[in-house]
Amino acid sequence: MVTKEEANYVALKKILESKPIWIDIKKAKDVVPGMNEKTILHSGPPISWENITGGQRQAIIGACIYEKLALSEKEVDKKIKNESIILKPCQDHDCIGSLTGVYFPSMPVFVVKDEASNQVAFCSIYEGSQKERLTYGVFNDKVIENLNFINEIIAPILEEIVHKANGISLKPIMSRALRMGDELHSRNTAATILFFNAITPYLFKLKDTSEKEISEFIKYFNESELFFLHLAMAASKVTANSIYNIDNCSIVTAMALNCKEFGIRVSTFGDKWFTAPIPKTEGKLFPGIKYEDIDYMGGESLINETMGLGGFAQASSFPLQNYSGGTPEKMIENNRLMYEITIGEHEQFKIPFFKYRGTPVGIDIFSVLQKGISPIINMGLAHKKGGHAGAGILKAPLECFEKATNTYKKKYLN
Amino acid sequence: MVTKEEANYVALKKILESKPIWIDIKKAKDVVPGMNEKTILHSGPPISWENITGGQRQAIIGACIYEKLALSEKEVDKKIKNESIILKPCQDHDCIGSLTGVYFPSMPVFVVKDEASNQVAFCSIYEGSQKERLTYGVFNDKVIENLNFINEIIAPILEEIVHKANGISLKPIMSRALRMGDELHSRNTAATILFFNAITPYLFKLKDTSEKEISEFIKYFNESELFFLHLAMAASKVTANSIYNIDNCSIVTAMALNCKEFGIRVSTFGDKWFTAPIPKTEGKLFPGIKYEDIDYMGGESLINETMGLGGFAQASSFPLQNYSGGTPEKMIENNRLMYEITIGEHEQFKIPFFKYRGTPVGIDIFSVLQKGISPIINMGLAHKKGGHAGAGILKAPLECFEKATNTYKKKYLN
Repeated sequence: MVTKEEANYVALKKILESKPIWIDIKKAKDVVPGMNEKTILHSGPPISWENITGGQRQAIIGACIYEKLALSEKEVDKKIKNESIILKPCQDHDCIGSLTGVYFPSMPVFVVKDEASNQVAFCSIYEGSQKERLTYGVFNDKVIENLNFINEIIAPILEEIVHKANGISLKPIMSRALRMGDELHSRNTAATILFFNAITPYLFKLKDTSEKEISEFIKYFNESELFFLHLAMAASKVTANSIYNIDNCSIVTAMALNCKEFGIRVSTFGDKWFTAPIPKTEGKLFPGIKYEDIDYMGGESLINETMGLGGFAQASSFPLQNYSGGTPEKMIENNRLMYEITIGEHEQFKIPFFKYRGTPVGIDIFSVLQKGISPIINMGLAHKKGGHAGAGILKAPLECFEKATNTYKKKYLN
Repeated sequence: MVTKEEANYVALKKILESKPIWIDIKKAKDVVPGMNEKTILHSGPPISWENITGGQRQAIIGACIYEKLALSEKEVDKKIKNESIILKPCQDHDCIGSLTGVYFPSMPVFVVKDEASNQVAFCSIYEGSQKERLTYGVFNDKVIENLNFINEIIAPILEEIVHKANGISLKPIMSRALRMGDELHSRNTAATILFFNAITPYLFKLKDTSEKEISEFIKYFNESELFFLHLAMAASKVTANSIYNIDNCSIVTAMALNCKEFGIRVSTFGDKWFTAPIPKTEGKLFPGIKYEDIDYMGGESLINETMGLGGFAQASSFPLQNYSGGTPEKMIENNRLMYEITIGEHEQFKIPFFKYRGTPVGIDIFSVLQKGISPIINMGLAHKKGGHAGAGILKAPLECFEKATNTYKKKYLN
């Protein structure tokens, strides 16, 4: 049998060798495994409908109504209870959720394939930078109009482009963005522009797209600095997928929140979650907003930290200091700490300020617990009433790692 | 009479208030003041034809032949000597030169206007990233073909775009690029992409441009990470122009090289140069190249350092560490030193790593001399046989500042 170190090394090698390519845009129901006309996904570990509250509940209700699975909140509630609408966690379906993480059957999703492992993963399309978004737990006429815009204008153009381009390789864009001030979680400004640059030649080859639609498409990109986040998440998810179920491997494969709990997954334990209550985010709220106004609605963009980005690459992204309420010195210190809990350094994702040292990658549950150092996550915060409320640093709760190491010990060390 | 401090403050205010807009592309002879069908410009302080050697001489000969002012090197030599070709320094004509700095009458140039001062300045268009370029002292069939490409494809498209866009404001792009890893001298990667992004909508509105031409245009941009440097230089030049001839002002308005000398200009002394021999550049040469292979061919991109960029913003650009042979720590130290010799901090150009402190700007000749701290310049190095040979740090020679302060003292302090 392989040792833990050998198993972890296999995982690290797969992470470094992954080659995520954006290959398509499809409706979720047509491409996501196990998803049908009645499935709605949510972010984070499994949670019962009764326990889903606040923005995450509103988003699910909105998704059901938008999809015409029900006409009212009451009907949604009834249909979920009698299982004529099925609620499932994103990551059980190779999807990765933004904030509330709602996926509905007709939602267009990015399809990203890892050419090294042949795994496929999915992510929703960025809804845009306006305050009111389904992802942020808001559902009203404006949100509906914007969802229609994404489905009818943005998705079809992107679909035609990705076919003409024969796929777009994501790691080169991500690697370059880390040299241009992004850490690919809270900041994706460079990556979005690099991506737009990569697709521009195909914009001139579109069939049946009017000049007006092209200019709306360009406007959406110019206003969507976080557009690429969703592709980065899909790239991280498909990479994480490639290291599931490696026997003996103690590397983290997911960190995610639903509205109540924080959970992690560990390679050797496949789909099993180890959960704990969500800790307080240390951060900076936008003016006029109090901590009581914050609502945890879920979130899975932490998949990027899990694969060596975000908080694990923050010394690439000093422009984020104000946004996250920190200083460059604090960011450097936090980033350095992450080398203590990871087994390797990334070969494609490098930090100029650290003399091009690779980002820390491969979180070992044992190192986290032994050193008492939590993975650091660059988190966006949502307002109870919907919308972006601030940002900060979330430290993954040690309790998850304690549960995971205990389970590991029971399985392997008895 | 105003004091030196008051005069310098006036200059600083003008620098900060400048609003450079790229407004046009024109042939040099049609727009550059004092330039006619027989004028060739070169970079750096005035220098006699006999003293112009190496790459700078080759570039001038090439420019004359390309312009059909002469058919051979011999004829160029004869015509310059009998003044039927007139050789002049760029900066006497509000132009700013890249490396050898050659301008010929039919050359298309960027026209940049400072909306605050109504000054106008000019810069050539980036020739592309290929090794052999007229700017780098090479003239052959490939160089001719590429100059034709710039003149016939790139310049007309840019001209149509700038008219349709009704001008493009440069400071917002520059300001943003400093948050994305550029220092706008040796690295312009982000600025070039941001610029391309800004012009993309107009690419869809071109008349009479074929799809083939558009795809050549896009290809040129994707291969030209330094494209924006020339617009940044024009922006800095027009800003510098706005502080010429302020009585009593001891702020540097130009630093430039010809193939033999380094020179500076100082506000109160208008067009006068204070010169010294070129010091050795401390840097890193590309593999296989020795210091003896280096040829100083001139250079005026130092105008960016003069206006608070390049070496004065290098802590914005840690990706450059390998290129310039330094470390992040050394870059931070060098950048901090520049605050010792400048009178202000930029309000639009800020350095994330310094907690968004403005770049040091307004080089005071007295501070340089009293503290013995030379302005630090991020320099590209050229190979004797043409092409890029390496890069490093050039320290402006103190002798220039000594001459300037002595002249200042004679004028004002006797």
